[in-house]
Amino acid sequence: MVFKLYGSPMSTCTARVKAVLEELNLKYELIPINFGTGEHKQPPHIHRNPFGQVPALEDGDLTLFESRAITRYLANNYHSSGAPDLLKKNDRKAGGVVNVWIEVESQQFNPAISPIFYQIFVAPRFGAAPDQNIIKDNVDKLAKILDVYEARLSKCKYLAGDFFSLADLHHIPYTYYLMATPHASLINSRPHVKAWWEDISSRTDCKKVTDDMQAAAASASK
Amino acid sequence: MVFKLYGSPMSTCTARVKAVLEELNLKYELIPINFGTGEHKQPPHIHRNPFGQVPALEDGDLTLFESRAITRYLANNYHSSGAPDLLKKNDRKAGGVVNVWIEVESQQFNPAISPIFYQIFVAPRFGAAPDQNIIKDNVDKLAKILDVYEARLSKCKYLAGDFFSLADLHHIPYTYYLMATPHASLINSRPHVKAWWEDISSRTDCKKVTDDMQAAAASASK
Repeated sequence: MVFKLYGSPMSTCTARVKAVLEELNLKYELIPINFGTGEHKQPPHIHRNPFGQVPALEDGDLTLFESRAITRYLANNYHSSGAPDLLKKNDRKAGGVVNVWIEVESQQFNPAISPIFYQIFVAPRFGAAPDQNIIKDNVDKLAKILDVYEARLSKCKYLAGDFFSLADLHHIPYTYYLMATPHASLINSRPHVKAWWEDISSRTDCKKVTDDMQAAAASASK
Repeated sequence: MVFKLYGSPMSTCTARVKAVLEELNLKYELIPINFGTGEHKQPPHIHRNPFGQVPALEDGDLTLFESRAITRYLANNYHSSGAPDLLKKNDRKAGGVVNVWIEVESQQFNPAISPIFYQIFVAPRFGAAPDQNIIKDNVDKLAKILDVYEARLSKCKYLAGDFFSLADLHHIPYTYYLMATPHASLINSRPHVKAWWEDISSRTDCKKVTDDMQAAAASASK
């Protein structure tokens, strides 16, 4: 069985799903969606995701969207032997803590880092100069959030404990782009956050995905 | 066993967790956190939630925060007989779709409705006039999101299918407050969204929580 993933290798949310597919050793086909022609806002893609965004995943006759729902679906249902249990499904306490840090990424980290990413990488593609006020406000927000991460990661190796989980993985795509900006110091100035980032970003399966992001970004900027 | 829920009956995120505790017929004690004295930013609460927010839940020696992680933890682990399976855990496809709409609430609905709530209900408590530009931008965003909901709810009674789930429940607290503003028309002008709202907000367990929200808000404004 081969999953069909509709998206773009440059897209952070597509990369989040790819990283899980790679971690779980699942076979998939990436079907590119062309943002330039507005393919994401038209049929048939709008029937896959009514919000006109990427990614969407097809598993036989089931179509899912929202990257974090897809990663959870895969980790819930396709835990193959040898692959890590990214949700600690059979451990009430550890699984509860994994979900806490999945929500921290979703409700704290993502709302601060995504506007920085948008201003630096996306706005210029539409001919707009990055809005420095938006960047500054969100860099300040992210700094406070990462102070909490630094304290947390001084007590355990990964966010949910001493094991890699979906909570860590969800951070990879945006942090990867952040590290290519002057704001990489947000990570590098916090020793435990820096060690955590170096650990998770060097995982073979994650590196495969970030290498694809880099190749796609390089090709798009030619 | 009695869960300890630290929060405030007026808080939308506390109400989200209360609604699940009520739906699952679980016993809990609500321990109020006093925002006026900054109790949420100080020990011991800052040890329960390092971001200094409510709610936090104690289940024996396990402490959890982030409302959507707590609701999931309860629905995952404390599915009592007679109570609905809010996550459709044993149904791969239905469970996958529940998680899609949980993420839609989190990534689409919440980022649009929470600034409207903040400007109308919270800013005035700090002596600030509601920022009409922020309200307008987010009302426009929410209208587009609710157009997708209208189409979805014309095909099934609830967001994830013909069954009430955690995805519906997560919408209750913010929508309850929205209905007390002139922007209630966002709901009332869309017949399927209106019918859905009337259905979910009239559930006995949810009504118990929104009645508490109303009583607390009335008492706070005296």
